[in-house]
Amino acid sequence: MTDARPIGIFDSGVGGLTVVGKIQELLPNEDLIYFGDTARVPYGTKSEETVTKFSVENIEFLMTHNVKLVIVACNTASSLSLDFLKRCFRVPIIGVIEPGAREAVSVTRNNRIGVIGTNATISSGAYEKAIKRLNPRYSVFPQACPLFVPLVEEGWADNKVTKAVTEIYLEPVRKRSVDTLILGCTHYPILKKILGRVMGKDVVLVDSAREVAKEAREILDAGGLLNGSKSKGKHRFFVSDEPNRFVRIGERFLNRRIDCAKRAV
Amino acid sequence: MTDARPIGIFDSGVGGLTVVGKIQELLPNEDLIYFGDTARVPYGTKSEETVTKFSVENIEFLMTHNVKLVIVACNTASSLSLDFLKRCFRVPIIGVIEPGAREAVSVTRNNRIGVIGTNATISSGAYEKAIKRLNPRYSVFPQACPLFVPLVEEGWADNKVTKAVTEIYLEPVRKRSVDTLILGCTHYPILKKILGRVMGKDVVLVDSAREVAKEAREILDAGGLLNGSKSKGKHRFFVSDEPNRFVRIGERFLNRRIDCAKRAV
Repeated sequence: MTDARPIGIFDSGVGGLTVVGKIQELLPNEDLIYFGDTARVPYGTKSEETVTKFSVENIEFLMTHNVKLVIVACNTASSLSLDFLKRCFRVPIIGVIEPGAREAVSVTRNNRIGVIGTNATISSGAYEKAIKRLNPRYSVFPQACPLFVPLVEEGWADNKVTKAVTEIYLEPVRKRSVDTLILGCTHYPILKKILGRVMGKDVVLVDSAREVAKEAREILDAGGLLNGSKSKGKHRFFVSDEPNRFVRIGERFLNRRIDCAKRAV
Repeated sequence: MTDARPIGIFDSGVGGLTVVGKIQELLPNEDLIYFGDTARVPYGTKSEETVTKFSVENIEFLMTHNVKLVIVACNTASSLSLDFLKRCFRVPIIGVIEPGAREAVSVTRNNRIGVIGTNATISSGAYEKAIKRLNPRYSVFPQACPLFVPLVEEGWADNKVTKAVTEIYLEPVRKRSVDTLILGCTHYPILKKILGRVMGKDVVLVDSAREVAKEAREILDAGGLLNGSKSKGKHRFFVSDEPNRFVRIGERFLNRRIDCAKRAV
């Protein structure tokens, strides 16, 4: 059994494109509908109620494109709203927290895991809960890094300011001798180089994008929902604000050209 | 003739509270309704169409409180949307650009004025146009400083990171030998100390909040709309996201306690 409907992905802005990149690698012939809520970005400083309301609206938009699976490619929305969203919609929905937690648990050797994310993601304790569900004896050290998103959006992925900010934020996590650091925000893979330098080469950086793509593949496969087509999938991009800034910053995340993004609302 | 209706003020978030502070000084017995659009903050990275749509909705909310004057206490919304808003509503509306430009023109001695603001404010050229309307021979040097808002919201008003960012952003403006710098965003007065140190003591920093309050007083006075009450005005605060974060950060801007802020939508 196959299913030619597209996969739907949303994020508050461009960050979720790191997940699109991995889907493209693992599921190259799937069609994708991406929605970036650029009129209301960021989510990471906002409340559960607000993020949930926005997420419901985003999925309603994706549903107008008849998607067969929804990926909440935003750590904040996954942290605050996933359970509610799963109760609201019949389409299968996956977030980025569980896959990231699983990956971290599979790579840690000393069972000490750091997590960095937005204020909302860190306050929610979502990663900590997900890791403890897998193994209650693991130690988790969370750290909010609210300036990382604006630094990435400014294009300062690797300058002296970003290095200084990284050192300040990561100091408490480093002191805890973690051997694994979850990049709990889809913007953070852009900072991998500097995060790696500051944490040291023995610390594994976990970016949940790849695990999310694997989970999407498993769900589609199990449900007979994979696209049977042999040709390359079409990716369509929609945003809630004007598309030019999204395209410009998005190409850095996706590492390829975005031919067209449309305003959706 | 007097008018006991409140003044309405909106901003994308907490920044407009710097204007509230000056209104309180100059018009102590006026009632105020403040609306901070904290669910959709920031505006400075968004398009004219989106910022205008949000601004219309914000004024519609203020109108439900029967305000006699609207202050657009957000540089981005003033830059992109003020003309449209004035055509949409019958209530008098003032922005922050013209007052800031007037103040800068009145203090410069060498007729070289720097302007710092969000991406949207700087791209709009609004300050440049306002200054040139007052005197076309003035030279204006604009500089977008997108990291200043997140740095202020992180509470890093005066650390080594903020100093390094300030030096990078202000270097081109300093090279132009301006003697006046317009702080074209309501968040920036919080950075006055560091901006003053980097620009040097001979450069005057213009914060439009005081000029805006003066313009409000003139308009109310001219229209017979001043509040005749002898008692201290009541200030009420509304936000579109949950109020706690607004109250916590807002107290830094207002330099006094905010007893209560309510969620408006």
